Amino acid sequence: MSKNLTKRSEDYSKWYNELVVKADLAENSGVRGCMVIKPYGYAIWEKMQAELDRMFKETGHQNAYFPLFIPKSYFSKEASHVDGFAKECAVVTHYRLKTSEDGKTIEVDPDAKLEEELIVRPTSETIIWDTYRKWIQSYRDLPILVNQWANVVRWEMRTRLFLRTAEFLWQEGHTAHATKQEAIAEAEQMMNVYAEFAENFMAIPVIKGVKTANERFAGAEETYCIEALMQDGKALQAGTSHFLGQNFAKAFDVKFANQEGKQDYVWATSWGVSTRLMGALVMTHSDDNGLVLPPNLAPIQVVIVPIHRSDEQLEEISAEVKTLMAQLRKLNISVKYDDRTTHKPGWKFNEYELKGVPVRIAVGPKDLENGTFEVARRDTLTKEIVAKADIANYIQDLLEKIQSELFNKAIEYRNSHITEVNSFEEFKDILDNKGGFVAAHWDGTGETEERIKELTKATIRCIALDRVEEEGKCVLTGAPSKGRVLFAKAY
Amino acid sequence: MSKNLTKRSEDYSKWYNELVVKADLAENSGVRGCMVIKPYGYAIWEKMQAELDRMFKETGHQNAYFPLFIPKSYFSKEASHVDGFAKECAVVTHYRLKTSEDGKTIEVDPDAKLEEELIVRPTSETIIWDTYRKWIQSYRDLPILVNQWANVVRWEMRTRLFLRTAEFLWQEGHTAHATKQEAIAEAEQMMNVYAEFAENFMAIPVIKGVKTANERFAGAEETYCIEALMQDGKALQAGTSHFLGQNFAKAFDVKFANQEGKQDYVWATSWGVSTRLMGALVMTHSDDNGLVLPPNLAPIQVVIVPIHRSDEQLEEISAEVKTLMAQLRKLNISVKYDDRTTHKPGWKFNEYELKGVPVRIAVGPKDLENGTFEVARRDTLTKEIVAKADIANYIQDLLEKIQSELFNKAIEYRNSHITEVNSFEEFKDILDNKGGFVAAHWDGTGETEERIKELTKATIRCIALDRVEEEGKCVLTGAPSKGRVLFAKAY
Repeated sequence: MSKNLTKRSEDYSKWYNELVVKADLAENSGVRGCMVIKPYGYAIWEKMQAELDRMFKETGHQNAYFPLFIPKSYFSKEASHVDGFAKECAVVTHYRLKTSEDGKTIEVDPDAKLEEELIVRPTSETIIWDTYRKWIQSYRDLPILVNQWANVVRWEMRTRLFLRTAEFLWQEGHTAHATKQEAIAEAEQMMNVYAEFAENFMAIPVIKGVKTANERFAGAEETYCIEALMQDGKALQAGTSHFLGQNFAKAFDVKFANQEGKQDYVWATSWGVSTRLMGALVMTHSDDNGLVLPPNLAPIQVVIVPIHRSDEQLEEISAEVKTLMAQLRKLNISVKYDDRTTHKPGWKFNEYELKGVPVRIAVGPKDLENGTFEVARRDTLTKEIVAKADIANYIQDLLEKIQSELFNKAIEYRNSHITEVNSFEEFKDILDNKGGFVAAHWDGTGETEERIKELTKATIRCIALDRVEEEGKCVLTGAPSKGRVLFAKAY
Repeated sequence: MSKNLTKRSEDYSKWYNELVVKADLAENSGVRGCMVIKPYGYAIWEKMQAELDRMFKETGHQNAYFPLFIPKSYFSKEASHVDGFAKECAVVTHYRLKTSEDGKTIEVDPDAKLEEELIVRPTSETIIWDTYRKWIQSYRDLPILVNQWANVVRWEMRTRLFLRTAEFLWQEGHTAHATKQEAIAEAEQMMNVYAEFAENFMAIPVIKGVKTANERFAGAEETYCIEALMQDGKALQAGTSHFLGQNFAKAFDVKFANQEGKQDYVWATSWGVSTRLMGALVMTHSDDNGLVLPPNLAPIQVVIVPIHRSDEQLEEISAEVKTLMAQLRKLNISVKYDDRTTHKPGWKFNEYELKGVPVRIAVGPKDLENGTFEVARRDTLTKEIVAKADIANYIQDLLEKIQSELFNKAIEYRNSHITEVNSFEEFKDILDNKGGFVAAHWDGTGETEERIKELTKATIRCIALDRVEEEGKCVLTGAPSKGRVLFAKAY
């Protein structure tokens, strides 16, 4: 079986779309813009969920669940929020179907019109803050540290599997605090949790920063983000954490009695990551042969393929493999033995390469004789012969090594794609010919930001938290600037 | 703090509604019929999910995710299916809002009408079988053993927290098989998985059986179910597993080439349990003092409350408690130490009683002197003094004992509420004055079933799998019957 995968250098976007489908991660459904996440793709998402959930709970959060539907009137309560989401809302207007008069089709029953239309949640701030009003009376009820795993819907016109879909899965944290400082600390903490997760689990280096006012979440006073860089030089926002000030508390009248007995509005944050991370994962590590998965997120970390000419050989090999599997499982390594006789070893090699299984072990009669295994790495496509006696620990070390080398490779690529520019010519040249982040001075106005976007399609991805303060002149207008910001074309 | 909980004997239904809210399990939201599942309730649901998910995976199933929306036309493809669900569907008709002309309100944008309306999934057979058509060509692609954790919407007119809500959370398994026998075996297997889960984890005894044709799932050829009995003598269907025959394969044209190379339609099952189980849990074990949770599902299994008059005493107690907590955690027991000084011990006792924490340990100065702890059981409201040296193992054994005693108590109640009756007078008498399951002969017709329902509000809960074959006469019509079926009023 040939993979028939478009090469990245030929058409990166086509390569991505093909790979997501061929590697059994996801596919388009009969519903415009909505995807089916297939078992193999979902297994990766489950690993992400498990780790994130652990990290959320370790930082004191609890899960809860809020309604899918939001009454239309809730939306209007926070002005910038409705501006941000009204143009892409799925709206429920009726609650019943009926058979048409000729009995041939079913149609919406006009008698079952809702008094108030319901919006399928694009995000849950409004319904949650309407609920928090009932939960919060005094400072003793604070903080509320709640997260929700849920599906949300944003009616995007141009969709792409994982990266931009009408429905997607995510988690959304919504916290309530007695003080501004505490809420800001929470928003920063969750950005750090996301960064740790991206780097340690997904092996994706990220830049932490804040968004400009133009790019902020609708209703936020500050949006923290982590920005990653894909292999084609485009940036991808991998997670955001918002300090919402008292905006939603004011919109939904959520007050509390503070320690002095005075009434004050509650301070809020919200933060989320979504199945978009699956797209980032694919685009950071994979290659022309298929997926490359970091061991920490691979549903199958090790696959074992027998190479045999006879049933007797297969039996002997299987006995050997049984021992090996027990050893590996003892080390919490997830391992699959593919002893199907309906497929040839070459077909299997190809298949697991496509699916990004980090380590492949092949065992043939020669290996049995010599007491060895052939161990192949998916990321480097290199092979080694390893003695039976050392194998389990060797594999464990190898998985750790792959995990860290994937991260190092990605960080090298990323670091070599942050380019400082000092003129608009240079700015355009780097964007067009090299890609990546362009570190440039900017005069701090939304107008300039907008103008640069029109001229180049690049947006300010973030003002990095660790940026160096330096005097400079805006790359477009020449007006003074106090430090560089990171521009890029983005997903 | 008094609990102010209505007594079960006064008004069972009111007791249930109050308890769900007061124990912080769930509450109504601003959206008609949709609930908010609060962190404490959600933590119980997460424990259910974890165990069910483990059982599904152990039986070879994988998770996946399918779209929230179902095009209206998909629905019409399976005739009995659309009949079953059309009357309670939330329908999305538009995909955008806009600001009204006076700028004061937002309204649905009439220009953003969908070409085809979308139904918010009430269950996913149609969208999934539309997908399976693309996944299945040959017998080699079978079986497909997939499960989905998701939210679904059924526009119920009368809703009750957990028991009947417009939106609820559930899992739905959807499997595809090459043969009828294999599909039936799968449907039966999943009924057994549900029964095991209900009995071993939820401590709820269930009767396994099949539904009558009238009570079957819309589109099924056989519906297997597990039926539980609540404390008020009403039955509750706790899980169903459907053998769908080739109905959905035919409706969505899903064929496969069998081993002989012939084309045949695929055989299907689907099976699900939902947040309704939370209602069953509450109504099986809880009492007039609040929740009673089986240790296997309790988010907090043991709570420790210090009883002290001075800060020094609290310090001494806390040192002792620290050791105890380490011992308990080593045994994988989830334990909470409530050393808040803002609340009195009596308030805390009350609170954890209301929340159903299975074991409460109190420690005061006297206990320190004597080297003891006071251990209280939530289910029996009894107390014992336990020596420090034995405490960890004592608690571990106690939790197991509580788990099995809760089950035994429930099974005793259930067994004493299955009454054989041989006349319709007796039938009505038992229903009205005792409740529970009424085991009666029935002539096997839908008309009689319907008539009995009209006369008594009782439905046939199931034909138990272990029922004894015996000749008899239908309790209503006197027509011949081959065995008793179980009637009850039901949730």
